[in-house]
Formats: sequence, structure tokens, C-alpha cells
Amino acid sequence: MTTRAYGAHAADQPLQPIDIERRTPGPGDVQIDIAYCGVCHSDLHTVRSEWGGTRYPCVPGHEIVGQVTAVGSAVTGFKVGDTVGVGCMVDSCQSCSACGDGLEQYCEKGFIGTYNGRTQDPPGHTLGGYSQRIVVSERFVLRVTHPEDQLAAVAPLLCAGITTWSPLRHWKVGPGMKVGIVGIGGLGHMGIKLARAMGAQVVAFTTSESKRQDAHDLGAHEVVNSRNAGEVRAHAGTFDFILDTVAASHDLDALTALLKRDGTLCLVGVPEHPHPSPSVGQLVFGRRSIAGSLIGGIAETQEMLDFCAAHGIVSEIEMIPVQQIDEAYERMQRSDVKYRFVIDNRSLAG
Amino acid sequence: MTTRAYGAHAADQPLQPIDIERRTPGPGDVQIDIAYCGVCHSDLHTVRSEWGGTRYPCVPGHEIVGQVTAVGSAVTGFKVGDTVGVGCMVDSCQSCSACGDGLEQYCEKGFIGTYNGRTQDPPGHTLGGYSQRIVVSERFVLRVTHPEDQLAAVAPLLCAGITTWSPLRHWKVGPGMKVGIVGIGGLGHMGIKLARAMGAQVVAFTTSESKRQDAHDLGAHEVVNSRNAGEVRAHAGTFDFILDTVAASHDLDALTALLKRDGTLCLVGVPEHPHPSPSVGQLVFGRRSIAGSLIGGIAETQEMLDFCAAHGIVSEIEMIPVQQIDEAYERMQRSDVKYRFVIDNRSLAG
Repeated sequence: MTTRAYGAHAADQPLQPIDIERRTPGPGDVQIDIAYCGVCHSDLHTVRSEWGGTRYPCVPGHEIVGQVTAVGSAVTGFKVGDTVGVGCMVDSCQSCSACGDGLEQYCEKGFIGTYNGRTQDPPGHTLGGYSQRIVVSERFVLRVTHPEDQLAAVAPLLCAGITTWSPLRHWKVGPGMKVGIVGIGGLGHMGIKLARAMGAQVVAFTTSESKRQDAHDLGAHEVVNSRNAGEVRAHAGTFDFILDTVAASHDLDALTALLKRDGTLCLVGVPEHPHPSPSVGQLVFGRRSIAGSLIGGIAETQEMLDFCAAHGIVSEIEMIPVQQIDEAYERMQRSDVKYRFVIDNRSLAG
Repeated sequence: MTTRAYGAHAADQPLQPIDIERRTPGPGDVQIDIAYCGVCHSDLHTVRSEWGGTRYPCVPGHEIVGQVTAVGSAVTGFKVGDTVGVGCMVDSCQSCSACGDGLEQYCEKGFIGTYNGRTQDPPGHTLGGYSQRIVVSERFVLRVTHPEDQLAAVAPLLCAGITTWSPLRHWKVGPGMKVGIVGIGGLGHMGIKLARAMGAQVVAFTTSESKRQDAHDLGAHEVVNSRNAGEVRAHAGTFDFILDTVAASHDLDALTALLKRDGTLCLVGVPEHPHPSPSVGQLVFGRRSIAGSLIGGIAETQEMLDFCAAHGIVSEIEMIPVQQIDEAYERMQRSDVKYRFVIDNRSLAG
């Protein structure tokens, strides 16, 4: 089944229209017409092979929302016409302890990414959501129950949303807890909304004074300018949990110093250049932890989507036609987006 | 009350006999004749002011075992003749949340160390266990129920023992868990004994091939030479918990790579020079944590002592007269001790 897509043939080539093949749905598959696809930093890193190992042609996109157009004979959870989502994963081993625990993102064999993952389908690697259609195993398809006019803004929940939801949930964020969200971008702005809806006292940290009001509007009870050491230090020893969404190399000690005893600083960004080595003393003298967290499992992604639908939570987005993807990447790199670009996939027909 | 002790008058002077004053026991105090005092690396760092801030004269020693010789009128838990211990702390604020939780080592006002801590007593700072006698608030005195012929080997439990016990307990080490103990010294050899007695599968990591048999004898099910990368990597992704007792700067990535999903690497040593910055990717792609832990609270120290008495656990020691302390420090610095020096405090009378 030939499908129109937008992708790159090499690391140094711009994205352009290409035709790709989607498999005919097997018994367990769901075929989806893609309505919207969010634009993630990983898309840019992968399509330019900045992390290495990119297989071409490369079609990025793993924040997918659309409608079911066909289902395999064994599919029980979805039917034609359903509104569904697909996130960062389209397969995993289904037999390791991580998969057994519903945490496919930590699959011991390695999960299959929605793009650039190994597959039997042509061309031998997965192709993502910058396309009109995708075919995905039912096990990796999510139900979307938000109103139809919110669907574009639901798309980023599939990566930015779950990447912040999973650690907030794992570390049991809720009423009575003081939680920091560091960095107000695609991930951080979701972190603020979710932590607030979970009932926590939320403090946002940003280096952009211009985002102060925004952070309040997103739900932060308090906003701290990370460049103002005094403003930061005023919170010393008061946080139960800090979610750090900043991928660029930065000082972690200023953040671990803000944790209470037994508090955790959780990193969800992998820096290109290492952070300065964190102070061991600050961990020892407060039994503090520095941890990491990766996207989220399918079951918890569904839980997050349902929670967001119930609480009226979506991402803040700027919609673009796919033809503006290069400009969007440029603007994303200079953090000039509030707070996530989403492709209107109807533009692929243009 | 004048008491014979062994201490230093300045950072560049050797330890020598000195006379110190102990306060007359107040209503809540316990007066103890010290029988044995373990020798900790902190003693050496403090007496030489290697961490800065040492107050002189300095009398080190915070692994104290002895007999009660007097009690204040309000003391209810101890009586003359009882065998007792004193560890790293002799006071704390008793009103913060850490003290309320029985975790005085994390006292938000700062605990008072057994030596070099602030006190009203002359000379204005606390003086430790390299002395014939000590007076301590009942709240910081521990019951010792080991047989009398084991008391010298009990002394190191008060620091080396509790420093390893507390994190092993906090991270719920027990049957069905695979636990690594890194470094086989004063702390590590206790970590092996305790983790084994808690029912875990214990793997010891050492850079000294010569300690392989020792580690087995101490209770390790398996011993890995950390210098052999292949031997280390064979354990990738298999540990629930790793207790790292090595204070010197070293590569943490080789250890975080050994953790299962959700596993924790806990550091109990603060390096003089920072460790190489740990890989964030290895934390993110396994939801792993790097944490720190500091000695232990009074309640858990008592629990540890009782557990050790019940399981026949003591430290491996080499007894010395106090006059050999300089030689002991030298040997300790080159790890030439199996595994803890303990001062026979009767030698102070000599």
C-alpha cells in the first residue's frame, strides 16, 4: 500500500515528499489514517543522523493521532472510525520482564521505535508519522477520547506527555508534594500541566524571564529564574521531586541542593556533552538520588491519555503544514515555539 | 573530670598523649569507660584537617565500645555496668523532621559529631573515643549484647557497620535480590557480611586479586575483579542494588551498567576529586538511580547491633595499642589492614 510521506534520503538532504510502502494489515494490526503528528527534537536529531545510526530514507514522527481505517481479524480493542494514537514504540519482545510489567520502553531486547527501528516491512526499518497512513500492532495503539477539536493538541501527549507523566507517576507525585519542573519547552510545559493536575505544589524553573507568565498560565504555583542563584537557593532542601527536562549540559548541583532528604532529581534528557560531574556530597548528606526515565509504557500511556481527557489537558501547539518542517526545525532549535509544532497531515495531499 | 586521651594539637603534629576534660554527667547523660575504639579514615582526615575546619586539640574516634560507669538521674535505658556503644553522633536538634524520623544523621540543623562537633563542654568542640572516658546523652548511647570476647570487634559496627547497614536496609535488600558490594575495606567487608546475612545474593567487587578468597570467606557468593572489564560486563543488567564504598574517584558507568531496571547505585564515600561525570543515558535507559547515603540513625544503629548480635556478626579487626596510631594510619592509607584497626583503650593508661 503506497503512502505519501515526508522524509529525507540522507543526513545532509532536506525533507521532501516521498512515497513509502505500508504493510497490508495482519490479523493483529490496526491501520490508521494519520490526522496530526507532533514534531519532537528526536525527529530532527534522527533525520540528520546527529545520534548516528540513522537508516534512510528516514520518515520521522512519533506523536501520531488519527482514525482507524481497517483492523485485522484478531483485533478486539479497535474498530474502523475509532480515534487513536501511536507514540514512540510500535513493537517490543513481549516476553521480557519489562514487557511483562507493561514497561515496553525498557524492553530487554530493545523496543522497536516508530521510526528508524528494525522491521520485516520494507525498507527494513520503520517509518514514522510524517505520512498519511500507518499500520501498527494493536498492542501499541492507544485510545483517544478527547473532543475532536482537540486532536491536534493531543498528538504531543504521545511523547512529550508520556515522557513527563511516567516519572511523575513512578515517583508518586501528588497532593502534599512540592515538585520542580526544569525547562519550559515541549516536555516541561506538559510536566507543569500534569504535575499541577496531579495535585502537587509546582515550581517551574526557566532561564527565560519571558516565560515567567507563561509558566504561571500553564499551572505553576511559582516560577524561578534559574539564572538567579539567590532565587534558586531560596528553595534549598524543599523539593520532594524535580523533573529536569533540559537536555543541554548544565549544573545539576544547583538542583540536587533543592531536594529534601530522600528527594529525587529525575533527568529525561540525554546531553550531547556530559553534565559537570554532580556533587556526591549532596547525594550522601541527604540520601538524595539522581535518576533517569525514558518515555513510558503502553499501559501508562493509555492511563495518561485518559487522565488528560478527564482533566481537559492537551499540549500547547502551533500547527504547520508539513512543507514548513525545515523552518519548524530551525525555530525549535532556538526554542522559538510555544510549545510544540504539530503537522496537519492533510497537507501531505497538497 | 580529667581524662587521658590521644590527640593532636595541630594538623601537622603527630598524635600524642593529652589530658582532656569530660563534663560531669547531667540528668540525661551516660558516662562510659571506653574499652575499644575503632580507627576510621575520617579520624585521619580530620586530625590532619584534610577536609578543613578541624578544631584543635583534636581527639578522633567514633567507633566506641565500653562500660557504663555512671548515669544521670533521668536516665532510664542504661545502668552502671552495661556494655554500650557510641557511634558518629552525640547530639542533634531533636526537633526537625529527620530527627523525628529517627534519622539524626540528616538532622536539618546538622548533627553533632562525636569529635570536632560544636558543644558547650570545654574546649568548645567534641572530643572522641581515643580517650579513657566519654559522657554522652542517653539518646545517643547504644546497647551492645555481643559476648564480651567480641567487644573489640563490635566497635567498627558503630561506623563501618551502620554506614553499610543503613542503605542496605533503606533499599530493602533481602532474599531474591542480587547485591553488589564495591571495595573490600573497612566498610565493604561489613557490607558483604550484612548483605549476606540479610539473605541477598552477594557479589563483591575488588581491584585486589589478593582479596578474592577473603571476599568469599566474608560471605560473597561471587567475586569480580573490577579491573577485568569482561568479568564485570558479564553481570550487565543483573543487579538490584550496588553499594559502592570506594571514596577515590572512579568510573561509575561500569557499575550503573550492571543495574537492572529501577536499580540503584548507592555511594557512601565522598571523593576528594569528582568521579568522571556519570552517563545520563545509562540512567534514562533503565530508570536507574545514583544515590548517596550517610552513616545511619540511632534507632537503625540499635537495630543493626541487635541483628549482628543475633547473627554472630562482628568486624574483622587488628587490635593495636594507641601508641601505634601513626603506623596504623599509614597502613590504612595503603589499605594494609584486614579490615579495621581497633585501639585497645587500656593502652592509654600506659
